[in-house]
Amino acid sequence: MTDKKPTQRTADHNIEPLILNRRSPRAMSGEEVTEAELKQLFEAARWAPSCYNAQPWKIFYARHNDEHWQDYFDLLVEFNQGWCQHAGCLIVLASDTIFPHNQKFSPTHSFDSGAAWQNLALQGSAMNLVVHGMAGFDYEKAHSLLNLPETYQVQEMIAVGRPGALDQLDQGLRDDELTPSDRNKASTFVFNGKYQAK
Amino acid sequence: MTDKKPTQRTADHNIEPLILNRRSPRAMSGEEVTEAELKQLFEAARWAPSCYNAQPWKIFYARHNDEHWQDYFDLLVEFNQGWCQHAGCLIVLASDTIFPHNQKFSPTHSFDSGAAWQNLALQGSAMNLVVHGMAGFDYEKAHSLLNLPETYQVQEMIAVGRPGALDQLDQGLRDDELTPSDRNKASTFVFNGKYQAK
Repeated sequence: MTDKKPTQRTADHNIEPLILNRRSPRAMSGEEVTEAELKQLFEAARWAPSCYNAQPWKIFYARHNDEHWQDYFDLLVEFNQGWCQHAGCLIVLASDTIFPHNQKFSPTHSFDSGAAWQNLALQGSAMNLVVHGMAGFDYEKAHSLLNLPETYQVQEMIAVGRPGALDQLDQGLRDDELTPSDRNKASTFVFNGKYQAK
Repeated sequence: MTDKKPTQRTADHNIEPLILNRRSPRAMSGEEVTEAELKQLFEAARWAPSCYNAQPWKIFYARHNDEHWQDYFDLLVEFNQGWCQHAGCLIVLASDTIFPHNQKFSPTHSFDSGAAWQNLALQGSAMNLVVHGMAGFDYEKAHSLLNLPETYQVQEMIAVGRPGALDQLDQGLRDDELTPSDRNKASTFVFNGKYQAK
């Protein structure tokens, strides 16, 4: 690729490069993502912590050429379909809202599944894959399409693919790709003791 | 320390050692955790992905010798107080349930905050700190103690400390410490296409 390299992020405090450099790019090549690679991503999700070690995360996926692809693709809003056509895999991540050990509601099912998602994203970044989480899809249709049990809650969709050329993206998205998203300073969300307006 | 080393986990598929080896130990030394170290943990949380990059995570903390410690400690159930007395820091992680860009409810605030939590936990593991998430505390009392805005939701508490000797723990917890918790096989939570009972 002759594409320009994205600018690098700078951390205010020294942290693991894996954490700082994980991003959510959109440019993908259309090449396949193998079952073996997906298994590495799912394995990373597997080792997240969860309340009572209940492991509420559930992962549903379609690879680009399998029989489920079109159904998954059709869940996405048009904007996401634009760039996800080059993905190798689409994932629906859901959570079980019920603790398996006592069949009661788990107040942490979303939070714990977010931890598993982050493991998956970091693992993909370490493998130089594009891993991009999305809320822009039809949650209800996803629940129904996948025949999810009533106790399952859809959390997000994820596009996985190999990095691709930027010229497939519109100019605005190309700029996003070259300038990694920033974050609020930690001082805006960290409080010693009690909350106070900042 | 003359303590036995914990057994190592084995992954079914090759993943980042940082992800596989992150654990939730309980034995801590009572030594302090510095402000500089905490800033590294919070910086790691900062770089998590979130819907609309809304960054809903909010972090409240008390260090062992500061004026807020006792109030934080009193939130914990007795079991957690038993081992958290040796922590260097207690954290309450909350989320803002409202998107800042449109003041509407964010359906992903818990999930996104879970991703930030996992970054914090992984960073602590890389720094050889004990980082242990807990649901065993009074959520309502935490909300009120910290003067949280109504739109904030308490997600978990976290103990942070330096690894300590096992003999401070009861026999059962000592065994937990030496045998890292296992996980269900990925095949139990991964589905190609639609859900089917397993």
